[in-house]
Amino acid sequence: MEKYALFGKLMTQPGKRDELLAILTQAAQLVATAKGCHHYIVYKDAQHQDWIWVSEIWDSEADHDNSLQIEGVMDLISQAMPLLAGRPEKIEMTVVGGKGIS
Amino acid sequence: MEKYALFGKLMTQPGKRDELLAILTQAAQLVATAKGCHHYIVYKDAQHQDWIWVSEIWDSEADHDNSLQIEGVMDLISQAMPLLAGRPEKIEMTVVGGKGIS
Repeated sequence: MEKYALFGKLMTQPGKRDELLAILTQAAQLVATAKGCHHYIVYKDAQHQDWIWVSEIWDSEADHDNSLQIEGVMDLISQAMPLLAGRPEKIEMTVVGGKGIS
Repeated sequence: MEKYALFGKLMTQPGKRDELLAILTQAAQLVATAKGCHHYIVYKDAQHQDWIWVSEIWDSEADHDNSLQIEGVMDLISQAMPLLAGRPEKIEMTVVGGKGIS
């Protein structure tokens, strides 16, 4: 079955990137053992000092959606919201193959 | 040391996506054992039928740049160029952490 993948772009209020990175790192720990979770990787954009990217790979979109129900995740989303400047952007994909994913 | 990461977006000529996916899958095999290569993952965009994404993670930008010298890589790039519609786009980042990367 083709795996579901997602790149998310999050733009923070000025100076708030480190705070949001800490929240997303906690989120990564919460979802790491979730059903169907292969990747949840957090990045700092090299050109824009208030931008963060996340790449996720899941067995299915349903597994991704279910991860929002994991205890603590909605709380982290609530903490993250006031740090954002604008709506997060999402690129949805399916995995074809390569190195770093089985 | 912070790892270097890259999302690349490649837009193909109409109907050429599968051909380019095959080339990129070969490229992934060539660089899989390169020094400093952690990820080279190829994706199909879910919304745009001629778009491809690649996510790469390397120990350093230099390791990424050196991968262009691997035997066969430049040949694959030559095969890929005529399939493209426009210039590839690149998002450069550093890895903060998460699941799926050590």
